[in-house]
Amino acid sequence: MTDARRTPSLIALDWGTSAQRAWLLDRAGGIIDVRRPDQGLLATTAGIDVRDGRARELAYEAAFWSACGDWVTAHPHLPVIACGMVGSAQGWADAGYRTVPTDLRFGADALVRVRHRRGVAHLVPGLRVPSADGVPGDVIRGEETQIIGALEALGDPTGAVTLVLPGTHGKWVRVDDGKAVSFATAMSGELFGLLTGDGILARTTAEPRRDDEAFARGLTAGRSRGLAAELFGARPLVLDGLLSPASVPDYVSGVLIADEVAHLLPTTGRDRVLLCGTEDLCRRYERALAAHGVVPTVLTEDVAARGLWRIARSTGLHHPEAQERQWQ
Amino acid sequence: MTDARRTPSLIALDWGTSAQRAWLLDRAGGIIDVRRPDQGLLATTAGIDVRDGRARELAYEAAFWSACGDWVTAHPHLPVIACGMVGSAQGWADAGYRTVPTDLRFGADALVRVRHRRGVAHLVPGLRVPSADGVPGDVIRGEETQIIGALEALGDPTGAVTLVLPGTHGKWVRVDDGKAVSFATAMSGELFGLLTGDGILARTTAEPRRDDEAFARGLTAGRSRGLAAELFGARPLVLDGLLSPASVPDYVSGVLIADEVAHLLPTTGRDRVLLCGTEDLCRRYERALAAHGVVPTVLTEDVAARGLWRIARSTGLHHPEAQERQWQ
Repeated sequence: MTDARRTPSLIALDWGTSAQRAWLLDRAGGIIDVRRPDQGLLATTAGIDVRDGRARELAYEAAFWSACGDWVTAHPHLPVIACGMVGSAQGWADAGYRTVPTDLRFGADALVRVRHRRGVAHLVPGLRVPSADGVPGDVIRGEETQIIGALEALGDPTGAVTLVLPGTHGKWVRVDDGKAVSFATAMSGELFGLLTGDGILARTTAEPRRDDEAFARGLTAGRSRGLAAELFGARPLVLDGLLSPASVPDYVSGVLIADEVAHLLPTTGRDRVLLCGTEDLCRRYERALAAHGVVPTVLTEDVAARGLWRIARSTGLHHPEAQERQWQ
Repeated sequence: MTDARRTPSLIALDWGTSAQRAWLLDRAGGIIDVRRPDQGLLATTAGIDVRDGRARELAYEAAFWSACGDWVTAHPHLPVIACGMVGSAQGWADAGYRTVPTDLRFGADALVRVRHRRGVAHLVPGLRVPSADGVPGDVIRGEETQIIGALEALGDPTGAVTLVLPGTHGKWVRVDDGKAVSFATAMSGELFGLLTGDGILARTTAEPRRDDEAFARGLTAGRSRGLAAELFGARPLVLDGLLSPASVPDYVSGVLIADEVAHLLPTTGRDRVLLCGTEDLCRRYERALAAHGVVPTVLTEDVAARGLWRIARSTGLHHPEAQERQWQ
């Protein structure tokens, strides 16, 4: 009897704007091998006209083959699945969006097929809230797979769950009985990068040093004067000698995350909150949520591979039993 | 009889971080001559160690002389007054701050004297709300002079007035019977610059084109999801074909200004609002205030020179009658 957990059964890629990750997964979804080629959407399409569909196809196919052509050659029958910006209008092909509310147990019709030199790859669609009456909607691409992975990791909870995925463009997603009901994006992470990378607060900052106390002070700085005024508060605190210049980034992080949580928690739901991201960001959002009496379930593992594996199963792309038979 | 309005009586400078303006004013405060040397604080102190007081003195004195040494030579008895960052810890000398609440009719003790090769110059202090219990205070340097000029332009209104000075770091100042009572800074202008200069919204923008309708849509975009989420809304609107990429900056401007006004108007006061700034910014804030039923008095003239002239009078630096006698 072979060790099922070491038998390759899926090639899975999370292919975003600036990063690309490729996994060789076993029949239980375990990771046999992982690669992080430096070939995100931007690098893949550099120098080509992205409006030219044929040029894009060639560029993505080449990048895919460079990332995991050897896996395909060694295991020619393995299904290939990819999520993220690879499925956008500037991607390998446009995999479209599922409009929420939508079931996250994707069926066989959900995936879009593209050809590579030895077979096909399957692209995962994003999620979409359409704009209506001038009120902005929103789109997600890649995070739908992380959400599916996170729900799987938690044993597919029934009822309503709020998933918080902090990041450059953090997502707050409301899920009810496996259906994505609504979501919102907060660009707090990007604002943090812009404010601490350039501008007056960057000039107020010395060589940054982690300062949890400064972060907590930012969290409790108050919101009555609005984000644009509260953020500026870091500067007078430094001028008054009450905040170290090295701690400005943590203070700013606290102000931004407190504002985001205070606004988005009421619009999504506080009954069951699942927080999924890097350890550092989860720690920050955990503290901000605690100020609202919310104790989230925290998941710091990378759930993208798990989500891709789950989608491959629900879409019928990958039948563990069928493959087992085929290889016996 | 000489024309009093053409007789030089004051050399006045608004000397900020990146800009420097110098005026030769007549006995009625009218402008005889104006210059805009490219010698703000940053240019003046370039290459010197700003902690070295003597090096700073030499650098500022040289920059002052280069800007208006010929005026001093031609009119050696004229008083010289300067406001702005020239009076900061990195300036010619630290002119300190007046702690609010404070009377804006500065007395003779308010100004700090520095020597130049042919006499003295007088530096205007800033205003300060001290930080307390970890709550950030705030500082103003240069705007106190604009406020004084704006109040003068309006005939020194009695009672409570809210002055709004939009800009990179916009100021909301509460004045009551000529006393500055409180103020706050909102960095909406800087956020606008960062967001439209770099990051995802800049990449969503085509060659910007003025679009008042997009600005109005940003104003009414709502604030329930918080600034970090509402700002991101520009992107799905573009993706859904509901907002032109060229109009993203105006939409973002609307979202930022609506949020600033909604937060700061209640904390300062809506009974009498004076708006003072460039025509474009005044137009934007006027529309945002109108959404709250507030019709501000709008002043688009440059009030810094008027403020400096007023301070020179209230501090006794400049006695029109005394000078008239001296020159008769």
